[in-house]
Amino acid sequence: MDYSEVLQQIAHELKPVIGQGKVASYIPELASVSPHQFGMAVVTISGEVHAVGDARTRFSIQSISKLFTLVMTLQLEGERVWSRVGREPSGTPFNSLVQLEAENGKPRNPFINPGALVCTDILCTRYAVPENAVVEFLRPLSGTEIHYNRAVAASERRTSHRNAAMAHLMKSFGNLGNSVEDVLDAYCRHCAIEMNCVELARAVTFLAHGGTHPSGQGEILTTSMAKRLNALMLTCGTYDAAGDFAFRVGLPAKSGVGGGIVAVMPGECGVCVWSPALEPSGNSLAGSLALERFTDITGRSIF
Amino acid sequence: MDYSEVLQQIAHELKPVIGQGKVASYIPELASVSPHQFGMAVVTISGEVHAVGDARTRFSIQSISKLFTLVMTLQLEGERVWSRVGREPSGTPFNSLVQLEAENGKPRNPFINPGALVCTDILCTRYAVPENAVVEFLRPLSGTEIHYNRAVAASERRTSHRNAAMAHLMKSFGNLGNSVEDVLDAYCRHCAIEMNCVELARAVTFLAHGGTHPSGQGEILTTSMAKRLNALMLTCGTYDAAGDFAFRVGLPAKSGVGGGIVAVMPGECGVCVWSPALEPSGNSLAGSLALERFTDITGRSIF
Amino acid sequence: MDYSEVLQQIAHELKPVIGQGKVASYIPELASVSPHQFGMAVVTISGEVHAVGDARTRFSIQSISKLFTLVMTLQLEGERVWSRVGREPSGTPFNSLVQLEAENGKPRNPFINPGALVCTDILCTRYAVPENAVVEFLRPLSGTEIHYNRAVAASERRTSHRNAAMAHLMKSFGNLGNSVEDVLDAYCRHCAIEMNCVELARAVTFLAHGGTHPSGQGEILTTSMAKRLNALMLTCGTYDAAGDFAFRVGLPAKSGVGGGIVAVMPGECGVCVWSPALEPSGNSLAGSLALERFTDITGRSIF
Amino acid sequence: MDYSEVLQQIAHELKPVIGQGKVASYIPELASVSPHQFGMAVVTISGEVHAVGDARTRFSIQSISKLFTLVMTLQLEGERVWSRVGREPSGTPFNSLVQLEAENGKPRNPFINPGALVCTDILCTRYAVPENAVVEFLRPLSGTEIHYNRAVAASERRTSHRNAAMAHLMKSFGNLGNSVEDVLDAYCRHCAIEMNCVELARAVTFLAHGGTHPSGQGEILTTSMAKRLNALMLTCGTYDAAGDFAFRVGLPAKSGVGGGIVAVMPGECGVCVWSPALEPSGNSLAGSLALERFTDITGRSIF
Repeated sequence: MDYSEVLQQIAHELKPVIGQGKVASYIPELASVSPHQFGMAVVTISGEVHAVGDARTRFSIQSISKLFTLVMTLQLEGERVWSRVGREPSGTPFNSLVQLEAENGKPRNPFINPGALVCTDILCTRYAVPENAVVEFLRPLSGTEIHYNRAVAASERRTSHRNAAMAHLMKSFGNLGNSVEDVLDAYCRHCAIEMNCVELARAVTFLAHGGTHPSGQGEILTTSMAKRLNALMLTCGTYDAAGDFAFRVGLPAKSGVGGGIVAVMPGECGVCVWSPALEPSGNSLAGSLALERFTDITGRSIF
Repeated sequence: MDYSEVLQQIAHELKPVIGQGKVASYIPELASVSPHQFGMAVVTISGEVHAVGDARTRFSIQSISKLFTLVMTLQLEGERVWSRVGREPSGTPFNSLVQLEAENGKPRNPFINPGALVCTDILCTRYAVPENAVVEFLRPLSGTEIHYNRAVAASERRTSHRNAAMAHLMKSFGNLGNSVEDVLDAYCRHCAIEMNCVELARAVTFLAHGGTHPSGQGEILTTSMAKRLNALMLTCGTYDAAGDFAFRVGLPAKSGVGGGIVAVMPGECGVCVWSPALEPSGNSLAGSLALERFTDITGRSIF
Repeated sequence: MDYSEVLQQIAHELKPVIGQGKVASYIPELASVSPHQFGMAVVTISGEVHAVGDARTRFSIQSISKLFTLVMTLQLEGERVWSRVGREPSGTPFNSLVQLEAENGKPRNPFINPGALVCTDILCTRYAVPENAVVEFLRPLSGTEIHYNRAVAASERRTSHRNAAMAHLMKSFGNLGNSVEDVLDAYCRHCAIEMNCVELARAVTFLAHGGTHPSGQGEILTTSMAKRLNALMLTCGTYDAAGDFAFRVGLPAKSGVGGGIVAVMPGECGVCVWSPALEPSGNSLAGSLALERFTDITGRSIF
Repeated sequence: MDYSEVLQQIAHELKPVIGQGKVASYIPELASVSPHQFGMAVVTISGEVHAVGDARTRFSIQSISKLFTLVMTLQLEGERVWSRVGREPSGTPFNSLVQLEAENGKPRNPFINPGALVCTDILCTRYAVPENAVVEFLRPLSGTEIHYNRAVAASERRTSHRNAAMAHLMKSFGNLGNSVEDVLDAYCRHCAIEMNCVELARAVTFLAHGGTHPSGQGEILTTSMAKRLNALMLTCGTYDAAGDFAFRVGLPAKSGVGGGIVAVMPGECGVCVWSPALEPSGNSLAGSLALERFTDITGRSIF
């Protein structure tokens, strides 16, 4: 499979739709990102790197960080994580409080905001500066220095009343150990981490490789846990469009409102696509289409 | 892979749990089925048949029929189906009216009761005796004569007030073309179809084989549609436990309250397991564990 | 208090708003009623009759019949009624299934559709022709012959899928003794009873007179029960606008989508206003304003 | 009417039930109040005071403060208040977030927690020390010095995560002008105001007297607004039991989890009863029964 050619074809085909959709505006610092950008990268488990377009431009990973905080949480707590957060699709908008209240403060899964707040709470208990721990965790996976954008973190923190509502609600149910303020601080900072498509595609290759990072950092997760994480990404990774996304794309994936989406082709490669303008579901419009074309052209999906 | 040996091992390991859980009691005729039964079958795309235990005892397929009525509906209507039924997990108990009302009578997916009622409505429009059309459809797929159990159908029909409520609600939103009575009659009859594990495992091999039945009945669905149907089974096929099921088992699957579960290993085989006692989620307790062991032992899942 | 003068003043003031709002269209037979009609009547407990406008034109009483079926049910069953239907405001649109499902098939109160279906079910158990029993009950109260409109009843029956959904849901919870069809037949017929403002104002005078009809038909309800029924009308009688209605008008009242509203001034009189065009809440727009002016001008309300 | 005798009779009759129910425990400082207390007072609009039992023991007024903050808010803002808070019964438990989210951060009414937080927010904008403003407002109404209990306020503030969740949610919808912290501080303090039955009964007499305080402090509210406030208390004043309370008692009332309930007999008197043990609905068990007996024995209610 000549992935470079595939990426070229996708970039060519998608030109007309780049910029369609809406850049996320609820974080003021992100509202000014130009929607006319598109990058895509494939990193195979044998280490080949294929890239097209703006694949080396860093962007705000936002909810993609939920994938990494979950991995860190699983390393620290193992199966005990599931006593505090579920693994079912949410079925309601990604920041809804209804379900959280009805289910006594236990979030449906780690990829919706309250679930990620629980994972961040676990990191807050273990690390003095949890956002730095996430950055440290990502350095060997991505092969580069990583930072978070303080202006973006501060901008999100100032407007995070809905996340504060969810955190307080979970606190009232006893499902948050640290103070709401500390958890929100750490959460907004790891959401503001900036990476590019190549770095992110490389960072997720361990999920295509049975839990072991191909470039030799050893086991990140057991093979069984890595497969299960892929399953969780497939059913819960793309907000309320997870069913539709699995239907159209057929790969485990995690998206963020910065316009990035990472995906995993088991036994084969990590993939990342980025384009800032979003569908109403919160997923990158061009990014979703690019991944749909990717499985169409390669004839490969997990199904 | 020696599937016969795998099935033997699973049957041996699961002996202690056979009979745990509860047989579905809301259909009086089904309440008397002995919970101490367990069968499992694998039919590969090359035609090999492997079976263990009660794999040749017929049982009421119940909601597994939803898979077949969807396939028939897709053959008849193609993508137009999705204007009347969605493809997202439901996130609420499988017979809930809340979501149906909030979403203007469009069911979340074809594998929950209201979604299957819409598919049945489409069959009612096309066929004079829709339940017979389902039976006819299943004969070449399963390689045997198939029937539905009239006593079970009548028993379910008499107690189907909740399904009637959902059908009337959809009718009030204009999402049901035929009379509620006709749709419920056909629905209860195709749910009462009786098949055994070998027949069901064979019937789904086309989903492991790119949409074409391996024994030569030609294309049932296009390759793309077959893959997409597998995706839908993974995200929506096992009631509200779909996320957990994907996490533990990692295969597209569809379950029924009769205790059967069919699963698909793409490129490899169809699988069916049956044991009547259910988990609270409505899936066979021993059946779910058997499939979990199946992917553990074979080291294979779609992830 | 010169009620005739008050009614004249109200009719004069409201002229500009008569016809504003929308005539109920979900019952085809009612959709053609002219919105440019307005009548109002006061019948005091001493028997004086005051009327203005179209106060002697009969209209479809619709949900006002819920008041009378509840009174009949209380006569038959007494306090046992409350084991099958609550007495709390619903807080959601008047035909919502959500609450009914969440609360196991027990309707919030007798003035929303499912609650009235339960009352009708009780009448179906006691009377061979329950709609005739309602008509018989209303004759001495109103002082005239009463009939229901068969065309309106049939028209509503044909489109009553949402009521059928609620009835089947209650049946599934065991809160309906008779067949859904029989209950809906009787329900649509007593909703189609036709009365005019004078007849309705007279019919409710017993609620202003401690449960005893002033013209000598004896005790309809005990004083305590009559007062409690007034309380129930105040908190639940005008769909989801009950709080706002109590706030603005301050009288116990029951409205119908035919555009009629009956109200009670304890110790004083029964009132009825009619104008077919409705507010979005389902209450007569001009009728609500007329009652608001009535308590403003007379300086009397229960508060 | 000899109110002293009526109160004696009620106190005598209720002896067996005093202490039944549960003292509110979610505020640790209140959990230790003895449930074996009962007091009741009537203050007529002509100034007579009737009292029985512990009617001069001060208790934590808790949600009864919502009545006074609403009156202050209406004095300040008039009808504009209703653009930020509704006047319909909530229909769901008193601290539910569901409805608040579904209705875009506009609370159903000023007597549920989020509605009272909006009123407190208005006071925070107008007053440097809003809790002191409430205390000042209550002094002439009650005729005595009033204070709030700092230990109770601090105890509630430390455990107010659910109120914080609601405040943040409203903030995210733009329906809170001040910081969540400031609003919660003021809220917990005015809830911790301590008064006795005689003081509270006197404080609400203006609502029985057309909005003017009988002892000569002039107009508190216009007659129309006072009547409307009574209507609001009737439909929304006693948590989710408002319908049942109106049915049984038939008087406008506002309760608090400290075990107090104030009620209004228009044209006649203010009433206050106190007994700390609560019904599941959050209303004083003995207090509700005492008011029910009060209207039974006097033969008077608003209906």
